[in-house]
Amino acid sequence: MQKIINYISIIEEALKAISQKKEPEKLYEPITYTLNLGGKRIRPALLLLANNLFGGKDETALDAALAIEVFHNFTLVHDDIMDDAPLRRGKPSVYNKWNTNIAILSGDVMLVQAIQLLAKKNHGSLHEVLGLFNTTAIEVCEGQQMDMDFETSSTISIDDYLKMIELKTAVLLAASLKIGAVLANASQDDAKHIYEFGKNLGIAFQLMDDVLDLYGDPKKVGKRVGGDVIANKKTYLLLKAQELATGKIQKDLDFCLTTKVIDDSTKVERVTTIFNTLNIKELAVDEMNLFYNSAISHLDSIEADYEKKNVFENFAKSLMNREN
Amino acid sequence: MQKIINYISIIEEALKAISQKKEPEKLYEPITYTLNLGGKRIRPALLLLANNLFGGKDETALDAALAIEVFHNFTLVHDDIMDDAPLRRGKPSVYNKWNTNIAILSGDVMLVQAIQLLAKKNHGSLHEVLGLFNTTAIEVCEGQQMDMDFETSSTISIDDYLKMIELKTAVLLAASLKIGAVLANASQDDAKHIYEFGKNLGIAFQLMDDVLDLYGDPKKVGKRVGGDVIANKKTYLLLKAQELATGKIQKDLDFCLTTKVIDDSTKVERVTTIFNTLNIKELAVDEMNLFYNSAISHLDSIEADYEKKNVFENFAKSLMNREN
Repeated sequence: MQKIINYISIIEEALKAISQKKEPEKLYEPITYTLNLGGKRIRPALLLLANNLFGGKDETALDAALAIEVFHNFTLVHDDIMDDAPLRRGKPSVYNKWNTNIAILSGDVMLVQAIQLLAKKNHGSLHEVLGLFNTTAIEVCEGQQMDMDFETSSTISIDDYLKMIELKTAVLLAASLKIGAVLANASQDDAKHIYEFGKNLGIAFQLMDDVLDLYGDPKKVGKRVGGDVIANKKTYLLLKAQELATGKIQKDLDFCLTTKVIDDSTKVERVTTIFNTLNIKELAVDEMNLFYNSAISHLDSIEADYEKKNVFENFAKSLMNREN
Repeated sequence: MQKIINYISIIEEALKAISQKKEPEKLYEPITYTLNLGGKRIRPALLLLANNLFGGKDETALDAALAIEVFHNFTLVHDDIMDDAPLRRGKPSVYNKWNTNIAILSGDVMLVQAIQLLAKKNHGSLHEVLGLFNTTAIEVCEGQQMDMDFETSSTISIDDYLKMIELKTAVLLAASLKIGAVLANASQDDAKHIYEFGKNLGIAFQLMDDVLDLYGDPKKVGKRVGGDVIANKKTYLLLKAQELATGKIQKDLDFCLTTKVIDDSTKVERVTTIFNTLNIKELAVDEMNLFYNSAISHLDSIEADYEKKNVFENFAKSLMNREN
């Protein structure tokens, strides 16, 4: 993991060094603020790591890594408006600290800045990298729209849900890895495998997130157990339960989702009982393992140094054994 | 003008042919809606015309022309949210017809689609064209932020105002022309001159707009005379008047801007009298002519076929003699 931690430091330093033009102040202050709010910097670090896996130089891939991080932060600024989320990493989100107009416009500038970073130097892979980035950026927006559509839809299948988390979360992780690979002139096959590794790992990670919300150790998860249940959030767990529930169980689940006469703790307790009856946790973990194993199998297929590939496998393991 | 009209038809046809992916519907319907709302298509037509001026082929520049039009429409979708503008070209604006979240996200997709169009083919000028586009896109956002800042600022200089209209409006016209030139492999000098032609013409056009709002023929302008005055909009006319007014005239102007006891027609009448006393219309027209003449002088400096350059001069003339 040492390598990833080193890359995270490199990203942090480089982000600080991106000078934001001073004026108009209200346009650029929110960008500096957002980029300094912290975050794990996993995506850009993995981009550099993938670049390194295929023998690329850090300097060649750093701008692209920053582009991914700036793009990711752009999505947070706009998503926080759309999701009405007043806090981001424990601090006021941009629309809350300034206003919605400023959050829209600063976000727009960040999206363009991401492209600027990606296209800073002219190199042989520019066209390919841009193509992949643009496709991914649009997919991320599609994922966000699907997520918003789900709030008011009553007919979401497990497939719809998996597609949504793939687009909203997994493809950006996948593209980060692939861009690193392409910039190191990896073979097309290897670039494809590292993309699939990232995509499948991203989906597995999101499914783990759903499981931990209800079944995680509250001390380690760091938030209230069952928050998704309380909010009727359409997670894998709930959608799977709705798919399987029949008769009395179905009625009981519907009651829990619609009634206002039981308090939150009772709701979490009763929904958990239903989930347990239907074996939902195990089914979710099985699904997660399918994606996790697919990720590892793509990693295995990559033709590269075993030691270097091991860093990715250890990262994947640490991601899945996480309890927060 | 025949040439421009032909190009406008080419753009209209090509815009219709851009197929928008169907799903998620709520993401793509607003894009189709926006691109079909009409508009003069001046920027992409001028891009093709500039490309033609330097011997480029229409096919080579068409994607870039569409990119400019999609980008311009992206700015309209987001600007309408920020400016609280319920109508766009006489129809409901996107945030009004759908909602703000959808307008934000569809706009984001359009911005990425513009880059996709620009980077569709791999060619020798890709890096240069992207660089110019990105710089311009950020300038347009800066112009919009300045415009929003002006609403609550009481210390705007004429220079601030000219900078704002340069960024918000003129640079996109300039960049459209220059991208057309670069794609035709024009010399650096010629590309610079056509950029400056566009930028200066854009500023002149905007100043003309300010003058016509108050001094245009209401039948031809197609909107209420003095709308800017009624809204206390900080146009060139008002800022110049505030710069020049002293003593009683200054007091009278301040009164008109702050009082609520006179009706709109009286306000327009009294402000017009003040402007006339200060010779504001003539000063604005003089300023406009400075920019117009600078535009023409850059056009003159371009080394290209006289007949072809004449199309640009006639276009510039028709733009400035317009009464709507």
